Amino acid sequence: MSQDNQRPLILVTNDDGITAGGIRNLIEVAREFGEVCVVAPDSPQSGMGHAITVHDILRLTKVRDEEGVEEYSCTGTPVDCVKLAIYRVLDRKPDLLLSGINHGANYSINVIYSGTMSAAVEGAVEGIPSIGFSLLNHSAEADFAASKDVVRKVVRSALKNGIPKSTCLNVNIPKVSAEEIKGIRICRQARASWRDDFQPRQDPSGKTYYWITGEFVNPDKGDDTDVWALDHNYVSIVPVQFDLTAHHAMAELNEWGYDT
Amino acid sequence: MSQDNQRPLILVTNDDGITAGGIRNLIEVAREFGEVCVVAPDSPQSGMGHAITVHDILRLTKVRDEEGVEEYSCTGTPVDCVKLAIYRVLDRKPDLLLSGINHGANYSINVIYSGTMSAAVEGAVEGIPSIGFSLLNHSAEADFAASKDVVRKVVRSALKNGIPKSTCLNVNIPKVSAEEIKGIRICRQARASWRDDFQPRQDPSGKTYYWITGEFVNPDKGDDTDVWALDHNYVSIVPVQFDLTAHHAMAELNEWGYDT
Repeated sequence: MSQDNQRPLILVTNDDGITAGGIRNLIEVAREFGEVCVVAPDSPQSGMGHAITVHDILRLTKVRDEEGVEEYSCTGTPVDCVKLAIYRVLDRKPDLLLSGINHGANYSINVIYSGTMSAAVEGAVEGIPSIGFSLLNHSAEADFAASKDVVRKVVRSALKNGIPKSTCLNVNIPKVSAEEIKGIRICRQARASWRDDFQPRQDPSGKTYYWITGEFVNPDKGDDTDVWALDHNYVSIVPVQFDLTAHHAMAELNEWGYDT
Repeated sequence: MSQDNQRPLILVTNDDGITAGGIRNLIEVAREFGEVCVVAPDSPQSGMGHAITVHDILRLTKVRDEEGVEEYSCTGTPVDCVKLAIYRVLDRKPDLLLSGINHGANYSINVIYSGTMSAAVEGAVEGIPSIGFSLLNHSAEADFAASKDVVRKVVRSALKNGIPKSTCLNVNIPKVSAEEIKGIRICRQARASWRDDFQPRQDPSGKTYYWITGEFVNPDKGDDTDVWALDHNYVSIVPVQFDLTAHHAMAELNEWGYDT
């Protein structure tokens, strides 16, 4: 990377793979703000959550080296990409980590399954201001024009204000035009989950295998949730933490008297 | 499974694979308390975090069917195992989910990388009282005698008291004899992280690949943490939540004035 430290150093990754439209658009916007280093998976890694590769090897290949932008493709998970970038590729700590733009929603409970968001969480663990972006459109040909405006606004603010300590931001963008987006709302994660289904199929030898499918079920009707905001054409931003301690539950557990 | 609903139905899984010593010991203890259904990975899945299998098929094989215990091995991740158990294998909701006993620590930030703990978190998402157990001993030949006593104590309490709403329990057990264990402490997750390293090696064709390694760094000296408890020969129990919203950070973000 250039040693021009006047400009912010921005690390970019995703979970849809380095060739996905979402990350290509994110890289374009990131270049407006600083020096860009991309370390992203060489294949789709959706649903990989916070997985790291401990039982297999990792490979890293430089695929682009231009003024202001370097790109590496990696055989690992999104979290592997972040770790490799920090501990192997970069010679200084990035000023910002951007993950996405994911092809598909990462609101509510999806934050824990999402490779895109887990990469941002890993950045936060490392003390890097980190933001994950997701567009509510699964299509490989999704239009990211409105998303790019949102990324610009959020990145500008993050470079000016930083990110609240020990958090990262989960930004979801509704599938509407820029004009239809009503604004940005700071939200909590809706209390929702998946009612999963496993489609059984037969392989040529007659043995059964399964594909996971499922239905997102949201009984949480609060107007302060990410799901509500997106349903009403707002961009949702949820601050996400990696301290999973349920502090409020500690008193109840202490009453159980394990040692008596 | 037997339709004898008098006894609790206990779902057992892990991330070290269905043949690991830890899960074999956990199954033995679980049988003392109820009907047991095991759905566990057919291969080691350490570090898989909350990964689910969306780009590949899943296979499920019944490997044991005896009075009071059924076992299935699964090609997927620990979270896949929990989902398959709930939505494909079991005909009623389990009364308890037990994950482990993991060969190695899952304290502090390791909770987010751990397949063992992610399985327990998935159980909590599904509203099942869920507990992950880990012994601070990576050895395949680890002695689980003291751990079994701990499991008995915690399971007895969970069947009596339940688990605090929307949480699961992360139980770590020090690598000492039962006599040396000083007791059980309810803890918060220590604020620590990994300083990763990637060992470069050359394959036979001369190309570089990497193995992840690293050093656990804990600057958090609080005596209310899981790391402190384990260092002092206590069993640590951290209540773990899946609402990742950093509620305390929402006010700060609202001051940023995105829409001005």
